[in-house]
Amino acid sequence: MAQQVRVQNFTVSADGYGAGEGQSLERPFGAADPGELMAWALATASMPGMGRLDSSRGLDDRLVRDFGNGIGAEIMGAHKFSPHRGPWTDLEWQGWWGEDPPFHVPVFVMTHHERPSFTLSDTTFHFVSGEPAQVLEQALSAAGGGDVRLGGGAQSIRAFLDADLVDQLHVAVAPVELGAGSRLWTSPAELDDRFHHEEVPSATSGVVHHLLWRR
Amino acid sequence: MAQQVRVQNFTVSADGYGAGEGQSLERPFGAADPGELMAWALATASMPGMGRLDSSRGLDDRLVRDFGNGIGAEIMGAHKFSPHRGPWTDLEWQGWWGEDPPFHVPVFVMTHHERPSFTLSDTTFHFVSGEPAQVLEQALSAAGGGDVRLGGGAQSIRAFLDADLVDQLHVAVAPVELGAGSRLWTSPAELDDRFHHEEVPSATSGVVHHLLWRR
Repeated sequence: MAQQVRVQNFTVSADGYGAGEGQSLERPFGAADPGELMAWALATASMPGMGRLDSSRGLDDRLVRDFGNGIGAEIMGAHKFSPHRGPWTDLEWQGWWGEDPPFHVPVFVMTHHERPSFTLSDTTFHFVSGEPAQVLEQALSAAGGGDVRLGGGAQSIRAFLDADLVDQLHVAVAPVELGAGSRLWTSPAELDDRFHHEEVPSATSGVVHHLLWRR
Repeated sequence: MAQQVRVQNFTVSADGYGAGEGQSLERPFGAADPGELMAWALATASMPGMGRLDSSRGLDDRLVRDFGNGIGAEIMGAHKFSPHRGPWTDLEWQGWWGEDPPFHVPVFVMTHHERPSFTLSDTTFHFVSGEPAQVLEQALSAAGGGDVRLGGGAQSIRAFLDADLVDQLHVAVAPVELGAGSRLWTSPAELDDRFHHEEVPSATSGVVHHLLWRR
């Protein structure tokens, strides 16, 4: 089967924001509270580092555990990797995820600023510039026949949607309003001309899972 | 995380039957029409051998593609492997699945009748007797730290439920009535004392996905 370009478990507010304004080292999601935005995923057994005895193994968990299923590489925006803007001044920064990042595949960080690749556990981070199509070509080739996950944030997913390079999306819409920040959409209906679209509410967490795939 | 014992993508009729009466070589599901019972899965992109351009990549597909996710071994009942009853007389029979079975992990077929193991592509079939707990011990040990899938049919899943050896179930209830055959349950509510239970309807296919996990 042809390699797919997939958005997985990306969470936005009811008004379409993936993060609030004012990202910093202390607040990777800016004004947004990631504990509130991501509560649905944090309550599942398959969330890395979670797996408490009372965790859900229902619908939310099935979607969380699809995160790495068949994935061979990830592309992420620079703001997902770091709160830094401009040329890299601190090469000691290696992302938010500690010594064992939850990716386990090559990660391509989109940035206009050069930086050498590095490896943490089984995840290698590469820093690449260029148009979405060029970055995607590198990721597809590194994926060993697997799919490529678009890891976010909203801006970088938006860039791939605008270039019509996305095959399928799972976006969880959380019952919170942010009002400002990094926006994926005003409404998912914006994509209905190009994507099939199912809405699956989770009674357990209160999020609505939007599953979209190319027409 | 501890190894889980999982039922995945097991489909029953609205009245709880996994197969009709009268299994034969020509009718692996007996009186039941597998094309009707399994229509929801056959319409998805992730169903092995499917992947047509118009296939669904919605909820049904997410659940189909979870089939092998994290699985290290499968246990199946003798009737899933073969329509044969009694001692093996035809060792040329190697299951319904052709040269490349869709399991890709060791498979333990529960039978009272001895038969040597054999391998097709990356799937090895072992033939084992004993109580569910004894068979499970062998499968857990062969799973390399992965989960064990209970592949069905209904009778063998029932035996593991009765022995309280099942951690999670995904059962799709199809909008057909069979009236007789191999029965999983009268109603999933029978399990509510031991399992959390979510019902997730698929608007696309008309099946209701039941997700259950141990309390």
